[in-house]
Amino acid sequence: MADPRFFKVAGPFSLEQLAEISGSEIGDKSRETRMFSDILPLDSASQNDVSFIDNRRYIEAFRNTNAGAVVVAPELVDQAPESAALLITDNPYTGYAKLTQAFYPQNAFTDGKINAHAIVDPSAKTGKNVSIDAGVVIEAEVEIGDNTQIGANTVIGVGVIIGNNCLIAANVTLIHCIIGSDTIIHTGVRIGQDGFGFAPGMPRHTKVLQLGRVLIGNEVEIGANTTIDRGAGPDTIVGDGTKIDNLVQIGHNVQIGEGCFIVAQTGLSGSTVVGNFVALGGQVGIAGHLTIGDGAKVAAKSGVSIDVAPGVTVAGIPAQNARDHWKGLAMLRRLVKEKRGK
Amino acid sequence: MADPRFFKVAGPFSLEQLAEISGSEIGDKSRETRMFSDILPLDSASQNDVSFIDNRRYIEAFRNTNAGAVVVAPELVDQAPESAALLITDNPYTGYAKLTQAFYPQNAFTDGKINAHAIVDPSAKTGKNVSIDAGVVIEAEVEIGDNTQIGANTVIGVGVIIGNNCLIAANVTLIHCIIGSDTIIHTGVRIGQDGFGFAPGMPRHTKVLQLGRVLIGNEVEIGANTTIDRGAGPDTIVGDGTKIDNLVQIGHNVQIGEGCFIVAQTGLSGSTVVGNFVALGGQVGIAGHLTIGDGAKVAAKSGVSIDVAPGVTVAGIPAQNARDHWKGLAMLRRLVKEKRGK
Amino acid sequence: MADPRFFKVAGPFSLEQLAEISGSEIGDKSRETRMFSDILPLDSASQNDVSFIDNRRYIEAFRNTNAGAVVVAPELVDQAPESAALLITDNPYTGYAKLTQAFYPQNAFTDGKINAHAIVDPSAKTGKNVSIDAGVVIEAEVEIGDNTQIGANTVIGVGVIIGNNCLIAANVTLIHCIIGSDTIIHTGVRIGQDGFGFAPGMPRHTKVLQLGRVLIGNEVEIGANTTIDRGAGPDTIVGDGTKIDNLVQIGHNVQIGEGCFIVAQTGLSGSTVVGNFVALGGQVGIAGHLTIGDGAKVAAKSGVSIDVAPGVTVAGIPAQNARDHWKGLAMLRRLVKEKRGK
Repeated sequence: MADPRFFKVAGPFSLEQLAEISGSEIGDKSRETRMFSDILPLDSASQNDVSFIDNRRYIEAFRNTNAGAVVVAPELVDQAPESAALLITDNPYTGYAKLTQAFYPQNAFTDGKINAHAIVDPSAKTGKNVSIDAGVVIEAEVEIGDNTQIGANTVIGVGVIIGNNCLIAANVTLIHCIIGSDTIIHTGVRIGQDGFGFAPGMPRHTKVLQLGRVLIGNEVEIGANTTIDRGAGPDTIVGDGTKIDNLVQIGHNVQIGEGCFIVAQTGLSGSTVVGNFVALGGQVGIAGHLTIGDGAKVAAKSGVSIDVAPGVTVAGIPAQNARDHWKGLAMLRRLVKEKRGK
Repeated sequence: MADPRFFKVAGPFSLEQLAEISGSEIGDKSRETRMFSDILPLDSASQNDVSFIDNRRYIEAFRNTNAGAVVVAPELVDQAPESAALLITDNPYTGYAKLTQAFYPQNAFTDGKINAHAIVDPSAKTGKNVSIDAGVVIEAEVEIGDNTQIGANTVIGVGVIIGNNCLIAANVTLIHCIIGSDTIIHTGVRIGQDGFGFAPGMPRHTKVLQLGRVLIGNEVEIGANTTIDRGAGPDTIVGDGTKIDNLVQIGHNVQIGEGCFIVAQTGLSGSTVVGNFVALGGQVGIAGHLTIGDGAKVAAKSGVSIDVAPGVTVAGIPAQNARDHWKGLAMLRRLVKEKRGK
Repeated sequence: MADPRFFKVAGPFSLEQLAEISGSEIGDKSRETRMFSDILPLDSASQNDVSFIDNRRYIEAFRNTNAGAVVVAPELVDQAPESAALLITDNPYTGYAKLTQAFYPQNAFTDGKINAHAIVDPSAKTGKNVSIDAGVVIEAEVEIGDNTQIGANTVIGVGVIIGNNCLIAANVTLIHCIIGSDTIIHTGVRIGQDGFGFAPGMPRHTKVLQLGRVLIGNEVEIGANTTIDRGAGPDTIVGDGTKIDNLVQIGHNVQIGEGCFIVAQTGLSGSTVVGNFVALGGQVGIAGHLTIGDGAKVAAKSGVSIDVAPGVTVAGIPAQNARDHWKGLAMLRRLVKEKRGK
């Protein structure tokens, strides 16, 4: 069980409920009224727990599990122990993910109230069941949708709009931005500050005021201490369903499509356009004013300095077609070996 | 127009005022009393707006613009439409930058007061017209100059000095540091914490207390969530007019000169000395105890492990003269092609 | 002397006390009652100050110092000036480090009290002599050990446990974590937020709730704006005595051993296991599910994609045995030169 200091378990849920939540078919309908109180790995689950298998590596643990129910793909059903009820789905990991959300709802520790130690401008509008923790500062004309939670000591700047069912964690700063619904923003994130824009000069560079905004879509997740600058005139945009890890930098005017994954410590320079379902590995750097096509992949630590076509995987500094990059590295290793052989 | 939720436009300004602000000559003096209410791109500006062109790529938009005035370089004057008054300058981008500051002054949302929910130690001294937002904590003996703004939930530690006309954003921490005037520090910046100093040992390393400070000059800008450690004994120094992007790390005892650009996610290790007007690309790493000469440039993602002479451009990991680095990469690609040809 | 705006010097200490603190032998016992009021570099120390030498580069400064006492290794004793009492130890840098802690104790500016502007849940337990600054938010069921200090506007989430003698700086967020004793957490650190876990899917990825914790050991130090995600089910662990620099990212389920050094802007992907006394240079990236052996070293900016054996040094992207990596680079430079020769 998850540590009860930090997690409150919901439920119990019947097998029928678990099937509905996880999008599964029940293998044996006679068990559908059985109740389950937690979700645990195959090797620690008991008859009261549900578990899951999404990888053949764990097949032995599956065969020997004591779990009362298991989320499983059709092709592994014949490996199941007799003691386990089956929740059969083509996407057992997605099924598991949905069950974690049901057993451990994110609002377990909030109360839908505005804490007496929060400082909320009278002109701000808050929806129903909004939780605002102590020390939060909400400035003028802010709008916050229903069921949204705001963590302690977070600052929401003048005019910001936040949708419904969002989770804004502690110590966050949101300014000059509009946030969709069902979006999660983790601790220490900074959204909407000035982009890095200067007219270079001697003896002094001149600041170019940044007059755009940041628009964040629905179902986006943004990791701790990530920074997203507002546009210089156009807006900086993050599309629906895109997931961004910790310590990522997104420059002014960047446009990111839907469903992308951006792993930690990656940086996108100004005005670059990223398509849908793009995957950027960790510590990637992308130069400014580029286009990264739909479904493209960039290997971790690569430096992208030219456009990437849809569906292509690139690697290296500067990044090129990943296969060519690996061949170059292999060539170099072979040359070193040959020299040693002489 | 910039979104009025987030930006308050000043003005209107006469053509004569725009010329003075932007350092331009008016092309046709008969128009100098005309008034302008906003600054917009060439393709969306109307007769009441000023716009600018700083790049021949936009020459078509310039020829067809409805803008009432355009900031323009002398060599493009003959391409101007009849309808536009001209503001002629050798540096149109700098002229534009100054106009953005005039139309959208940074203090538009502040009131020159100390918020009732700020916590200011009685021994702190604040100048005239200082704005301190809710939740700010100002500790003992702090000194803050005239017209400086401090954003919500920022912490200014014991003894810190901040000059005039500074903008310190929300959720910042300043400790053990002295900040000049006209400097901008964005959200989440950390200045003055301990450097990374240990006497290595078994079974435990021993912490070396860091007894220096951080000295930040005038007209510096520091990006969101950037960290600048205080010196171990000497001070860590950032010179006048240097502009630092987001998520940059500056180690203890580093000295940076004037007018440098340091792009996002770059890191400078301890005791390195950087000259004036140096440009470091994004995600650059510089080892400790090095000297980077005046006007040197380091390509994005490079790793610098030896000194860089003034004016030189370096690239690669480890960084070398950029031309040699590109030749090495080209050589490798040629070898891969030749092998494929066999 | 360190700037008294920021540092309060303790002492004075007798030579005998300095010997005990620094683990040294006194060279001339007749001087052991002499008193010392500060610790300074060789070239600025006076007869009332103690200094140190740990590197032969400074031998001239040592010969000419006016310091009243010097921490020194046995092999340099014969170079000492007559005026200096000697504190002889095999580890003069460790001796110096301990003296900095004695002269400049970290609690110099705290009072062992809970500030009236801190917001502490009634169910939280705090030990003796705990200092909690203004604007701190301490949520339900938190436990804080004796002599621990918490900086302004920091947030300690539900259920978090912090040991004795810890220094938690300003603007930090600690959630879902248990922190040992004698640990230092710098400004802006984020510990315990959700790891980056999703079940990929079209049109939407599904969030996998992260049900583990972060366990931080004793005598750990964590640099400014570093992020450590909680485990997905297992815990994320940082072992005793490990020192982590600024802006480091540590993914879910990562286990780090004792006494490691992790330099700034390095990232460790999920489920990687790092042994004891491992050194990771700056801006290193380590892929997920790897094992880095005890005493291994990774050169700055390397990208580690396979396991590293104990004691081995690796470099490059992807990282390989450092010697092979340097040979490959040398080979490429030679090829470029040869081509130029033709």
